[in-house]
Amino acid sequence: MGRSVEDRAFLSDFASMSAFGAIGNGGVDRQAGSEADARQRAWLAELVGAEGFRTEYDRIGNQFCLRELVEGAPYVLIGSHMDSQPTAGRFDGAYGVLAGAHAAFRVCRDLPESPRYNIGVVNWFNEEGSRFSPSMMGSGVYTGLLDVQSARQTRDRFGVAVGDVLAQAGQISSGLGPEAAAYLEIHVEQGRVLEDSGTTIGLVEATWAANKYRIVVEGEQSHSGSTLMGDRRDALFAAALLVVFAREIADEHPGLLHTAIGQLDVYPNSPVVVASRVELLLDVRSPSRDLIESVAGRLDDEIARISLRAGVAMEVTMSHSWSVNPYPVEGYELAADTAAELQLSATPMMTIAGHDSTNLKEIVPTVMLFVPSVDGVSHNEAELTRDDDMLAGVRLITAVLAKAVEGALDGRSAG
Amino acid sequence: MGRSVEDRAFLSDFASMSAFGAIGNGGVDRQAGSEADARQRAWLAELVGAEGFRTEYDRIGNQFCLRELVEGAPYVLIGSHMDSQPTAGRFDGAYGVLAGAHAAFRVCRDLPESPRYNIGVVNWFNEEGSRFSPSMMGSGVYTGLLDVQSARQTRDRFGVAVGDVLAQAGQISSGLGPEAAAYLEIHVEQGRVLEDSGTTIGLVEATWAANKYRIVVEGEQSHSGSTLMGDRRDALFAAALLVVFAREIADEHPGLLHTAIGQLDVYPNSPVVVASRVELLLDVRSPSRDLIESVAGRLDDEIARISLRAGVAMEVTMSHSWSVNPYPVEGYELAADTAAELQLSATPMMTIAGHDSTNLKEIVPTVMLFVPSVDGVSHNEAELTRDDDMLAGVRLITAVLAKAVEGALDGRSAG
Repeated sequence: MGRSVEDRAFLSDFASMSAFGAIGNGGVDRQAGSEADARQRAWLAELVGAEGFRTEYDRIGNQFCLRELVEGAPYVLIGSHMDSQPTAGRFDGAYGVLAGAHAAFRVCRDLPESPRYNIGVVNWFNEEGSRFSPSMMGSGVYTGLLDVQSARQTRDRFGVAVGDVLAQAGQISSGLGPEAAAYLEIHVEQGRVLEDSGTTIGLVEATWAANKYRIVVEGEQSHSGSTLMGDRRDALFAAALLVVFAREIADEHPGLLHTAIGQLDVYPNSPVVVASRVELLLDVRSPSRDLIESVAGRLDDEIARISLRAGVAMEVTMSHSWSVNPYPVEGYELAADTAAELQLSATPMMTIAGHDSTNLKEIVPTVMLFVPSVDGVSHNEAELTRDDDMLAGVRLITAVLAKAVEGALDGRSAG
Repeated sequence: MGRSVEDRAFLSDFASMSAFGAIGNGGVDRQAGSEADARQRAWLAELVGAEGFRTEYDRIGNQFCLRELVEGAPYVLIGSHMDSQPTAGRFDGAYGVLAGAHAAFRVCRDLPESPRYNIGVVNWFNEEGSRFSPSMMGSGVYTGLLDVQSARQTRDRFGVAVGDVLAQAGQISSGLGPEAAAYLEIHVEQGRVLEDSGTTIGLVEATWAANKYRIVVEGEQSHSGSTLMGDRRDALFAAALLVVFAREIADEHPGLLHTAIGQLDVYPNSPVVVASRVELLLDVRSPSRDLIESVAGRLDDEIARISLRAGVAMEVTMSHSWSVNPYPVEGYELAADTAAELQLSATPMMTIAGHDSTNLKEIVPTVMLFVPSVDGVSHNEAELTRDDDMLAGVRLITAVLAKAVEGALDGRSAG
């Protein structure tokens, strides 16, 4: 089956884009504020410039590629993020920005009869949060959910500030960015719901609930050879018991509870010293707020039991907590109707991971779409979305964009 | 009870010595090759110089403070190490060097009638191994158990080499150091045998057996939120199961098995990424070689079970292994007889931790003594040996040194 010129152009641009920060096994290292990130943004500005889009950056380095159809009107924003984890796949985020750009090109080539809004392709700054925490920084500042001053002053582990790296790259301004009328995002699923059900499109209707904890274990430093076992107050032993607990409680609720400890630091981390201190981050997610709360109770009990057993003190701080959070039903319905018109198989689903749309849906009507991810792999170089699935997603989001530009989401409130 | 002038001098010098690298709660940070380590060595050279001892450094930075009684004769070496862990007590090692220096002063003030050997106070380089691995580096090179080239080229985590820091401090030469006739060392116990039995002196007759392993866990990087639990290959989960196993197997054999994992590194160590790799060091010690070997078998089984459960690959490398290792019986007997003459309570015991004497006993007759450590605390700022115990130890090692200088260990072979 021959592909159309437009589809071939998308795939060609996707290949060019994936070269930025490429690390050898199909993946990329394109952390926010890195040189690869900055070069890729310049490449995007050039790509969209050839199609008549003007690029500007706001006060937190979000990249907006704008084309005015109706003088002075607000913008339908469409996009995602191009930054990545340190060793990441080439689809996560980047696919959504390029799909948004090509959807915008296609709509502008075949303009709706009576547009009400302008079109803005957006590449949000620092969705991943690996170098500069927190994640979803750019969309957080744009939507007012995150303070701009603290975001710009955020430093990486070497003391480099967000504001400084953006200024060096010439990718920041004092602007607030364009006014949004609606937001559209398409992303790879990062799970297996679509693949397992043989479905092409996921229509996101809500986010899983989540609790995120920071846990500090305080034990006592001692000689790891000669100190009697009964005298040890081993912070790493306590932390290990907690890592095992977190996994076992998730295994009790298959498909309904995800837990993770991905970051864990040991002090003094010496071969001959019992650890005096461990810091770790625990992430608990579920589609059920009740289950999250029952897990919080179980965690309290387990912390008390572990502290006693290992002779340590453990301090638990909840750093983030959110309930099951619905996306605007109007956005979901518009996307579902449009998928049916295009004869694309689609299913309602929840997102477990956070996305920039999680922020945007708080201020404007929002559509969030998924395309399948082979084996559900993500944050890994082996991440893969097949060409046909990518192209189906571009077709759908193009059709949704054309309707949104004509006001199809109007009068619909934010979620 | 008034103390003698000599005892007051020892306590005063001990207080002066403890100021080098002091960190506020009675402890010190005096890692090998640090500025505090170098300044303390210069202080020692000055202290012994006032008593007629000439200081020299060998090709791995061991510090020898020498006084010739018999022209051209070998030396009875007496000492320990002054370097420390990053957050350490002020007694570990340093007590033994200063006790050795004062024993040497006392013997030289009241010279034996017919000395056969010269006296050398020694401060071995890098016993702790926290900044530069392996530990017991200086005594390892001196005894020929460790290659001098690889020791000098050892780098810290910032890429700084041992040879370079010693050269910068002017504390290295091309020399092999003086020829040894015997070696005497006194050290704080780092355990509770003496305290619990109300004994003043430990007469070390053997080291515990030990196996040291380096274990690498290889999992797969994935999104810590959205990846299904069953799809995860979490390297940190596997490592945590191993940390728990190591503790539980030790608890099965109270007093007969010590295990420790003090160093554990997670990659990529990001809050939103399931760990793809963990590296850790496992230390297993016992007074029974049979038990160590049965643990090795249990470890193999457990590694297989954990690999299957967590879906990871685990690679186990044995980095060090030694059997229960006796000290020369002649050294033990000389020390026991001398303690009885001085009416000091003494008990035979094993050492769990390694010491520079562990190396020296391989080449010359060696005496290793312990004094009590309150609550067995070590590698911790709260480490404490009482003044009376320190002074009793100085008295005993002085008497042993006087006999050794007259040849009391002669004709006795190394262990």
